[in-house]
Amino acid sequence: LLTLDMLHQTTDFPAGTTPYTIGWRSVAVSLSDIAAMGGTPLAVLLGLSVPEADVAFADEVLSGAQDCCTAAGGELAGGDLDSSQELFLSSCALGECPSPVLRKGAQPGELVCITGPLGTTAQALHLMEGGHTEEANRLLRFAPRTAEGQRIAEIASSMIDISDGLAHSLHLLAESSNVGFRVESKRVQWVPGLRAPAWDYGEDFELLYTVPERLHNPKLGTAIGQVTKEGVYLSGPRTERPLPDRGYSHGR
Amino acid sequence: LLTLDMLHQTTDFPAGTTPYTIGWRSVAVSLSDIAAMGGTPLAVLLGLSVPEADVAFADEVLSGAQDCCTAAGGELAGGDLDSSQELFLSSCALGECPSPVLRKGAQPGELVCITGPLGTTAQALHLMEGGHTEEANRLLRFAPRTAEGQRIAEIASSMIDISDGLAHSLHLLAESSNVGFRVESKRVQWVPGLRAPAWDYGEDFELLYTVPERLHNPKLGTAIGQVTKEGVYLSGPRTERPLPDRGYSHGR
Repeated sequence: LLTLDMLHQTTDFPAGTTPYTIGWRSVAVSLSDIAAMGGTPLAVLLGLSVPEADVAFADEVLSGAQDCCTAAGGELAGGDLDSSQELFLSSCALGECPSPVLRKGAQPGELVCITGPLGTTAQALHLMEGGHTEEANRLLRFAPRTAEGQRIAEIASSMIDISDGLAHSLHLLAESSNVGFRVESKRVQWVPGLRAPAWDYGEDFELLYTVPERLHNPKLGTAIGQVTKEGVYLSGPRTERPLPDRGYSHGR
Repeated sequence: LLTLDMLHQTTDFPAGTTPYTIGWRSVAVSLSDIAAMGGTPLAVLLGLSVPEADVAFADEVLSGAQDCCTAAGGELAGGDLDSSQELFLSSCALGECPSPVLRKGAQPGELVCITGPLGTTAQALHLMEGGHTEEANRLLRFAPRTAEGQRIAEIASSMIDISDGLAHSLHLLAESSNVGFRVESKRVQWVPGLRAPAWDYGEDFELLYTVPERLHNPKLGTAIGQVTKEGVYLSGPRTERPLPDRGYSHGR
């Protein structure tokens, strides 16, 4: 498995994000991609282009990147250092996997599950705006779910991370697997204290996967609905409505 | 082998560089790193962040990237697409190699060789300034020396590419191998038409390597001097002077 992500100041890091968190998160994005296929991270490279070659800033970024690797696996093995007007990062992760779980493979009748609550990043942005910088940074430093991903890979028929938001991620799985979903809204959990839950909150890194009911293991995720033949629907206590394919747009 | 490079408009692509050349060169930089260890490229990922999500521009960049992979090896397997004020690229190459050639390993008494003439990029920049855009772009699209690198790897004791300029690259080999060099200036070849040869011209991608004299093969490069015990010297017909460790600075 080989994955590459680019991140830059304007879009990816709201004011108040510390360089340590920036480094952590840049690596986490790539490790989450490895996790979403059930892979084991081997190596991570980080490209870092900082304004005015700020060495102290770069050191903090590398420290965050290193600690994310320690938490989630993979060796921070090198990278590239550059300088530019805007802060720019690029992270690459190499992983291995005996049989990667793809977006394709879900079957009608299976369960759709998720590894954690929604809205972590949205809540972090909210806290950041309110001046609660420290708590916001802590929330932004999620640990990519590499260990869980490897265990889920043994039972899942399809998988994705929810970095594009739950709604769009469901649509991506639906399209790749040629199936649909019915999500029961009451089963979906949200991060505590979240002010305004929204189905298209993005930049989170929980794993969304499908699994035959007999293989479902509640320790590896909460079942939030079923795989159906077509359409992506959200069902409440009395009504059912389509969940539109609205992707996460940065800076929401 | 895994390598990551970042490139951006201001520093790496003078006005007049076509998007096709930009794509070619971004991939070439990483494939040249694989070549410099004697590796076989397997996969390349390209991250591309373009102003105002210019799709036609992005298509041209990808086309150049694809053609460079076709020329030098490796499958363009994916990447990341983003938008930002300044054009930014990131390229990652994965390669394999039974026994990689390192910067360390040169022994006094061996020959130091180079695969081609110096000054290709400098000449391209010169042509660009003179309005000879097409020829300049053609020169910028060097083919990374992956095939040569693999053959050289069978005989070389140390290797590097000269992307940081000949002078700095010699010093890097000297430091890693704990040796010195004496380069005979008359043996060094320059690109035809080059106006002002300089030892610190960079952004070129010829391979610089050391080899025991009995294994030297002129088809794989020109011997330009000897490995010595210490110091990096340039010897002319009557004099010998130190070659300072002056790295290539962008935009020279």
